[in-house]
Amino acid sequence: MSLTAPALGRGRQLIEPALREAVARLDADTRLVASYHLGWCEQDGREVTAPCGKGVRPSLALMAGEALGAAPEELLPGAVAVELVHNFSLIHDDLMDRDEERHHRPTVWSVWGDAMAVLVGDALLSLAHEVLDSSGSAYAVPASRALGRATRELIRGQVLDVAFESRDDVTLAECLDMAAGKTGALLGVSAELGAVLAGAPTEAVVAFRRYGEHVGLAFQLVDDLLGIWGWPERTGKPVFSDLRSRKKTMPVVWAVHHGGAAGEGLARWLAGSDGPDELALRQAADLVERAGGRAWAQEEARSRIGHAVAALEGLVLDPVHRDELVDLATFVVERDL
Amino acid sequence: MSLTAPALGRGRQLIEPALREAVARLDADTRLVASYHLGWCEQDGREVTAPCGKGVRPSLALMAGEALGAAPEELLPGAVAVELVHNFSLIHDDLMDRDEERHHRPTVWSVWGDAMAVLVGDALLSLAHEVLDSSGSAYAVPASRALGRATRELIRGQVLDVAFESRDDVTLAECLDMAAGKTGALLGVSAELGAVLAGAPTEAVVAFRRYGEHVGLAFQLVDDLLGIWGWPERTGKPVFSDLRSRKKTMPVVWAVHHGGAAGEGLARWLAGSDGPDELALRQAADLVERAGGRAWAQEEARSRIGHAVAALEGLVLDPVHRDELVDLATFVVERDL
Repeated sequence: MSLTAPALGRGRQLIEPALREAVARLDADTRLVASYHLGWCEQDGREVTAPCGKGVRPSLALMAGEALGAAPEELLPGAVAVELVHNFSLIHDDLMDRDEERHHRPTVWSVWGDAMAVLVGDALLSLAHEVLDSSGSAYAVPASRALGRATRELIRGQVLDVAFESRDDVTLAECLDMAAGKTGALLGVSAELGAVLAGAPTEAVVAFRRYGEHVGLAFQLVDDLLGIWGWPERTGKPVFSDLRSRKKTMPVVWAVHHGGAAGEGLARWLAGSDGPDELALRQAADLVERAGGRAWAQEEARSRIGHAVAALEGLVLDPVHRDELVDLATFVVERDL
Repeated sequence: MSLTAPALGRGRQLIEPALREAVARLDADTRLVASYHLGWCEQDGREVTAPCGKGVRPSLALMAGEALGAAPEELLPGAVAVELVHNFSLIHDDLMDRDEERHHRPTVWSVWGDAMAVLVGDALLSLAHEVLDSSGSAYAVPASRALGRATRELIRGQVLDVAFESRDDVTLAECLDMAAGKTGALLGVSAELGAVLAGAPTEAVVAFRRYGEHVGLAFQLVDDLLGIWGWPERTGKPVFSDLRSRKKTMPVVWAVHHGGAAGEGLARWLAGSDGPDELALRQAADLVERAGGRAWAQEEARSRIGHAVAALEGLVLDPVHRDELVDLATFVVERDL
């Protein structure tokens, strides 16, 4: 824990100039919207110095590459590219989910309309590849290919998410598969790009991807827990937010399938159509807990972190950066549990 | 003319197996929607053998590269990539414009909803880069970089288009700039990719981009004319469709600024809010014609074709393919005028 918070801050700080340089390529209107979304300015362009996101993805790319002996400047294009893909997907997600706020600020579509949200998201996805292609790295092609594959996985996860909304029979396996796509793929490729741009052999590239994918799944499990019991002041989401929208998150689906009588009660509530009254939501959250969904998700997240750390065993890594990678994984599950 | 139609058909035919191979990488749901959009199947997945689009963009990539001595198989990744980017932009455009039909078939968003239209478009954009990155070409990086730059231009054009909707003071220069982004950039990069993948020197790469950009602007001018007077059975759009939505197309904006009394009458009509009655639309179309907007657009399109052909002068090209390139340019303006 002690190492991680500064290490994360460093990741976002290190990439910021390169991220700004990439965004500066965009036309003025697109750039304004992207800069607002990234927390650099207000809607009218006035600069702000609000704290940015944690930068987990760029930090992963930097830590992975540095652990393999590369210099930060060789890794920056990968770190910037994954941050751009992450933000492309946030802008499109907010539009598709009709979320009006993100971190207590109005979302892009709610300020500039649907068309701009579509276009600015598109622009950031395309820019991610442009950054890799302009990097001058000898590994630009495999890096860009890995990013393309991960984006395809990310979209597959989103498509499943959309399909699950209208289904009552989502299995836990499907739910895990969706999370692997939606969250695992991008954290996987973040660590992978660090290894690719460091010129690492396939074995190390695959190990880092696995590490990132496991961290990603743990990350999503924690997010799902926060979506039920979470801290609004940290996540920017109200308590019970995912229950309010009857979202089939992993702890909920686990509880329905493995939670005995409490799970059956939860299934009945999910199939119903009560309004969003606080008491009913609290009772639903209690059902998830009594069914064992909360304990399962916590345990599963810890287990994934174990797998993540194990994936790196056998690699010859710089010990300081190896510790950072272990700390980052641990931080993910301990951040708010 | 005689050469062009077969040459175009050949382009789309040549790339189809490679395009299908690329689309096959997508998950089943995304693939179904993409295949429907590309005209390969019905909404339920039943195969159809309807004629596909003309394939102007892949044909340009093939013709340009072959004129420089490359073999079709070296050029296919570029041809597939531009066709994917074209279709990504069509799917997102239809969503943003809320167009319910394309070529007499329901559009993706109108069948599968907004979220799937966003996601399937995203998937095709990402896939375009994946195709180049997996090509094994020694020129994959410059090709992907050119595609990224063109996509950025394309988005800039769309952003201007969105901004123009709420403005009454759009100048002809702005309008031409928007068309250069929306249509010119992608036709430009289609020809450019042929040259890049053929390993051509910068001079030839730039010449082919210019050629494609000019052809693109001519293409858009003809599209604008068809959007006013056009043939519904060919374009799938009703007569007066662009006037019905009071779209500030190039002939309209030219007429408003240079068309004397008729142009002023047109400006008054544009600023008004009459319903879409056929007589008013016919009168508006007549105002564009009397103001000289129609003749100007026809002349401007022909002039662009002259510039396109001139851009290739001085290059050492295979004569058969050079003729094809000249024919294709000519075909664009003569197709429906």
